[in-house]
Amino acid sequence: MRSPVYFYTSFLLCLVLGIICVIFVCYWNTRWRGGFAWDGSGLQFNWHPVLMVTGMVVLYGYAIVLYRIPLAWGWNKQPWKLLHAGLLLLALLLSVLGLCAVFNFHNTLSIAHLYSLHSWLGISTAALFTCQWVLGLVAFIFPCSPVFFRKLLKPIHIWMGSIIFILSIASCISGINEKLFLVLDRNSTQRYSALPPEAVHANSLGVLIVGFGLVVLNILSRQTCEWSEPGHLEPLLHEES
Amino acid sequence: MRSPVYFYTSFLLCLVLGIICVIFVCYWNTRWRGGFAWDGSGLQFNWHPVLMVTGMVVLYGYAIVLYRIPLAWGWNKQPWKLLHAGLLLLALLLSVLGLCAVFNFHNTLSIAHLYSLHSWLGISTAALFTCQWVLGLVAFIFPCSPVFFRKLLKPIHIWMGSIIFILSIASCISGINEKLFLVLDRNSTQRYSALPPEAVHANSLGVLIVGFGLVVLNILSRQTCEWSEPGHLEPLLHEES
Repeated sequence: MRSPVYFYTSFLLCLVLGIICVIFVCYWNTRWRGGFAWDGSGLQFNWHPVLMVTGMVVLYGYAIVLYRIPLAWGWNKQPWKLLHAGLLLLALLLSVLGLCAVFNFHNTLSIAHLYSLHSWLGISTAALFTCQWVLGLVAFIFPCSPVFFRKLLKPIHIWMGSIIFILSIASCISGINEKLFLVLDRNSTQRYSALPPEAVHANSLGVLIVGFGLVVLNILSRQTCEWSEPGHLEPLLHEES
Repeated sequence: MRSPVYFYTSFLLCLVLGIICVIFVCYWNTRWRGGFAWDGSGLQFNWHPVLMVTGMVVLYGYAIVLYRIPLAWGWNKQPWKLLHAGLLLLALLLSVLGLCAVFNFHNTLSIAHLYSLHSWLGISTAALFTCQWVLGLVAFIFPCSPVFFRKLLKPIHIWMGSIIFILSIASCISGINEKLFLVLDRNSTQRYSALPPEAVHANSLGVLIVGFGLVVLNILSRQTCEWSEPGHLEPLLHEES
């Protein structure tokens, strides 16, 4: 079960599930929600789920499993660090765009901002993600950061990385659920409770996101204890960097 | 940060936050949803959030941090095992009652079952929890279970324990969000977007549940690597049992 075949199969599954999630969220918003625009209308809102799922779940998930690839444990850590930080920067930029999409849509239609539990959780997760990225940059990329600061931040950075990912997934699940209640029950003849094709598709997207999350968390769980035994190379963030 | 004071402060925080969550969910359903009954009406539905939060989040959370209490690492594991299994059995029974409450309510009002993403996630989590409990009983409590089976199941049991807890929290967040959209936007003059007192209270319940989850996951993260170093006693489930 813990053989390299199992290990790399998990990575492949993670990669494929992530791509399927992006395809599913794009298809949902193209096929049933009318596609995309940047004009303050509902078509601008449609960027929100696409950018949040792509940024805060898929790219973020890819970035945090990067250090579990045995190839990343060699002596030259800098390229992997930059790839990790770069993927997370892209994830952060997409998430900020995704938030702009929904704020602009709410402004245009005079809808209140940040009232639902989904929005409270989502905005807190995005804020935590931003702090985590900035602190990670300062501590682990800037060459002048003191060693004691890296040592202090490292376990917090690793733990917070998983927590932000879990919170992102919880935000996505509540967001998909909320969106389906809002669009199917208010403006459509097909109620959510009748499970029309859009509801089945979007619910399946939620299931796929949870599945992707489980694969990522499973890869993350095979970490220090297993790989830092004497004779093994340690994952990158567990070395002094 | 890793001193016994920090360790026991986390347990105290976990205990207190769990109790506050239960008080908040009871107050929500008493103050704004009309209280409780078992008659197929909306008052029966009100048992659903109370029992799910109490069972699948709070009692479940208490049960899974039990093995991280250093007191539990002594030679006599049996009482702790039974307490762990007992707390989880109580959590399971409350969850089943919570599910009965919503199924009976839906039957009475001819509402379709299991259509929302919240319900898909929630029922899957409850099913996983049931399998986990039964397998845990067979493997770790029954004296005749073979050692190879315990060894095989132990890491899966520990990992699945955390995953079920995370899924429970995601289910609760999406459930609270869903309930507020259903009751505030459909049947009330006070819309969710206006953030009436009920919405602030229930959103705060969601935040408290997330906070409780973070404390539990933080306690769980301080496990094998930290405490199984030579000279330390190992947590109970990490010994051969």
